[in-house]
Amino acid sequence: MPDSRFFKSKGPFSVYDIAEHAGCELIGEPTTMISDIATLRAAQVGHLSFLNDSFLEQPRYKEEFKACKASACIVAEQHIPMAPEGMVLLVSDNAHDAYARVASKFYPAMYRSRTGIASNTHIANTAHLGVGCVVEEFVYIGEDVDIGPGSYISAHSYIGDGVKIGANAKIYPSVTVMYAMLGDNVIIHPGARIGQDGFGYAVSKAGITKVPQLGRVIIGNNVEVGANTCIDRGAIEDTVIGDNCKFDNMVQVGHNVRVGNHCLIVAQSGIAGSAELHDGVMLGGQSGINGHIDIGAGAKIAARSGVVSNVKAGETVGGFPAIPIREWHRQTVTLKNMTKKNHDQ
Amino acid sequence: MPDSRFFKSKGPFSVYDIAEHAGCELIGEPTTMISDIATLRAAQVGHLSFLNDSFLEQPRYKEEFKACKASACIVAEQHIPMAPEGMVLLVSDNAHDAYARVASKFYPAMYRSRTGIASNTHIANTAHLGVGCVVEEFVYIGEDVDIGPGSYISAHSYIGDGVKIGANAKIYPSVTVMYAMLGDNVIIHPGARIGQDGFGYAVSKAGITKVPQLGRVIIGNNVEVGANTCIDRGAIEDTVIGDNCKFDNMVQVGHNVRVGNHCLIVAQSGIAGSAELHDGVMLGGQSGINGHIDIGAGAKIAARSGVVSNVKAGETVGGFPAIPIREWHRQTVTLKNMTKKNHDQ
Amino acid sequence: MPDSRFFKSKGPFSVYDIAEHAGCELIGEPTTMISDIATLRAAQVGHLSFLNDSFLEQPRYKEEFKACKASACIVAEQHIPMAPEGMVLLVSDNAHDAYARVASKFYPAMYRSRTGIASNTHIANTAHLGVGCVVEEFVYIGEDVDIGPGSYISAHSYIGDGVKIGANAKIYPSVTVMYAMLGDNVIIHPGARIGQDGFGYAVSKAGITKVPQLGRVIIGNNVEVGANTCIDRGAIEDTVIGDNCKFDNMVQVGHNVRVGNHCLIVAQSGIAGSAELHDGVMLGGQSGINGHIDIGAGAKIAARSGVVSNVKAGETVGGFPAIPIREWHRQTVTLKNMTKKNHDQ
Repeated sequence: MPDSRFFKSKGPFSVYDIAEHAGCELIGEPTTMISDIATLRAAQVGHLSFLNDSFLEQPRYKEEFKACKASACIVAEQHIPMAPEGMVLLVSDNAHDAYARVASKFYPAMYRSRTGIASNTHIANTAHLGVGCVVEEFVYIGEDVDIGPGSYISAHSYIGDGVKIGANAKIYPSVTVMYAMLGDNVIIHPGARIGQDGFGYAVSKAGITKVPQLGRVIIGNNVEVGANTCIDRGAIEDTVIGDNCKFDNMVQVGHNVRVGNHCLIVAQSGIAGSAELHDGVMLGGQSGINGHIDIGAGAKIAARSGVVSNVKAGETVGGFPAIPIREWHRQTVTLKNMTKKNHDQ
Repeated sequence: MPDSRFFKSKGPFSVYDIAEHAGCELIGEPTTMISDIATLRAAQVGHLSFLNDSFLEQPRYKEEFKACKASACIVAEQHIPMAPEGMVLLVSDNAHDAYARVASKFYPAMYRSRTGIASNTHIANTAHLGVGCVVEEFVYIGEDVDIGPGSYISAHSYIGDGVKIGANAKIYPSVTVMYAMLGDNVIIHPGARIGQDGFGYAVSKAGITKVPQLGRVIIGNNVEVGANTCIDRGAIEDTVIGDNCKFDNMVQVGHNVRVGNHCLIVAQSGIAGSAELHDGVMLGGQSGINGHIDIGAGAKIAARSGVVSNVKAGETVGGFPAIPIREWHRQTVTLKNMTKKNHDQ
Repeated sequence: MPDSRFFKSKGPFSVYDIAEHAGCELIGEPTTMISDIATLRAAQVGHLSFLNDSFLEQPRYKEEFKACKASACIVAEQHIPMAPEGMVLLVSDNAHDAYARVASKFYPAMYRSRTGIASNTHIANTAHLGVGCVVEEFVYIGEDVDIGPGSYISAHSYIGDGVKIGANAKIYPSVTVMYAMLGDNVIIHPGARIGQDGFGYAVSKAGITKVPQLGRVIIGNNVEVGANTCIDRGAIEDTVIGDNCKFDNMVQVGHNVRVGNHCLIVAQSGIAGSAELHDGVMLGGQSGINGHIDIGAGAKIAARSGVVSNVKAGETVGGFPAIPIREWHRQTVTLKNMTKKNHDQ
């Protein structure tokens, strides 16, 4: 269960309220009170736990569930028979999603340790901050910046001249945002870099000439940007990120890239300049997308893939150069078999 | 065309002046006035656009050019016949380079929103700043630091004791520079880390002993370092970067690395300790260079290559372990064919 | 030899004292005085150098040793015959480790340019700093933070509410630490991010729901974390790093990861959520570890490997998907031969 040094529970709540909130079917005594959430292993009486069916291949989760002491647990329908006697069950067809909602009920979203505008900041006279904004110490806010109501700007962040940020943003410490327009409810994790120059040079016999980077970064609503991730601004068109996209840590987004809505981009992957990802694309960790190519809606790129050409909507690719994932698995097996054959000869 | 919220055009200029400045041959009325630059798609009357021949494989650029409303356009000689009627043409044998020069004429280089030394900084008494330096809020400048005239140090940057920076540097926010000597006209993007300890340990039965890192980072003139890129200082010799090198974001440069002049290093690539890159080397994105190896002048390393041994001058390599690029492409085809054959049997 | 602009030597010392300190056998005049350390190439009379046997494959080191002007040198037993006449020899069965100890004698560890608590900081009233702590300008220290004696917090660092840091920590500039408990003698390099949200989302038909990240980061003693490296806190269990682990720059550590003691993790590698590394694991640069897998004690992961399933204790793996390294080398050769054969036909 979460360390109260860092996290303050809003509980207790009754299992009835919890099931209601998470859209679960309830099996057991509705007035059972839950003080906190905990893992299967750590849970005690009065706690609620959850069995994430996507991890059920790991045998230890099954054993932990059977031995779990929690008063209540979120489960999928097919795991009801395994439940320990007396445990209240919250049945969901998406246990992970239900857990997310319950956890948010006990520990509501945004970390807001402070209120108001700290005195030791630099805020330009022409900047405008909405009602209820919080600004921590050592923040720099440039000319003509416009920040929506309820946004929280943490220490050491830099919001460059002209930047717009929507309502209820959470900007963590040491972030830089320049030449950018951000939507509502964005979360930017520490050290993320948004809006710096793209990598644009003209190479000639005379040498390397820097191409002025004159576009912007446009980010939609409900976007999350991971720690130390970099999103370059456009060269002359904009770099555009749609709504509900989630970027993990240390992702590289080159200039003029266009990302649709609902994309998930895992850590250390990179998207080269002018590539386009349509809605719902998922990039696995450490993968790379070539410049100027097109990744169709709902495509899945396996971890560590190197994608060099267009990917069709809905396709899943892997390897380098990336190919349909089944083909890549076959190639892996073929090479293994060939090697064995050659070596056995 | 660039958003005037962020970028202020120095125009208008006549096409005559522009062609002169960019070294282009002019076809059309020399007194035509240009107020701004814009993409083929977005351009209107009074704008100048450009047709980058390296992207002509993309059919849409050709169509956009034919329908372009710009008053003038930078083109290569062979595309003159495709031009819309009445468009003034600025003909160049390197359209990208010419565009870079024109864009710099409309939007001259460095972003300088401020002048003077902000009051809320820490600048050691023994530090020396040249004439015309700008220092934004919350900057830390240590003892004996020496910064050349006209340099701009953005908020939250840290210039450690003894560091030297040349003239006309642009240090973006949240940069750290320690144990380093930088040349003139360097541009360091947000969150870059220069001069921290290299990764040096002696491993023995007794455990892991840290090796003191006692070298420096030496960076030449006109070098650009991308956001969140890390350049470690030498273990006892120096880490050395030549003139005119350009590093993209999140590049790792290990201790004792030596990089020649005019090298281009794309995002998320890594150069392990004590490797040497000679003049004009290009590293593709997400590539890796093994420690203690030598990459000859003008060598090109394809994106996502893993280079484990020396590369000769002028060679182009790809894959992992990296081999001559044609060989790598053949291997890719061979594996594909073998897999098909096996599967069809 | 180290630049006195940045590094102050504590020497001179006699070779007798040095050999004693480093546990070396001494061959030559014990009263010989050494003023400084230097590379084989740069060393002059009065200097001490070292011959790192792991680099002896590089012919130039042998030549440099033969021509070396240093008054003394650390060597392995087998290289004694090659030594120049008159050179005092400090013989060690681990020359690199002996060098590390000697270098630390001349240049003792921690960089401490300052003393005391700077005035221009934000330190919450409820925070507690041990005796002898140093806090540089523009540091943010939140509520209930507890920092052990002798720790050094550099400018622009952010220590979030409730964080504990042990004794003698060195926190470099622009670091963020949140929701974390750190042991003694930790070194955190510039821009490292510790304790931010892990990448946790529940994906359903309704969209992407953020899973509150309610765990912590627990870091042991003598751990070093490289520049711009990111260690996410746990989702509900903790992310745990054992004693004596060393992380290079730009490493990604996902939520719930468990790392044992004495692990070495080279730059740009990534460890996905809930993976476990046991004691003494080494990860090569740019390698990746899949989520939820187990890497046995003492396993070695070659650079640029992509590890998708469990690795047994003591095993060395390479390639992607990673396999025993010898097997991977064989596959490389097989593919090369097949390609040659096909092409020659």
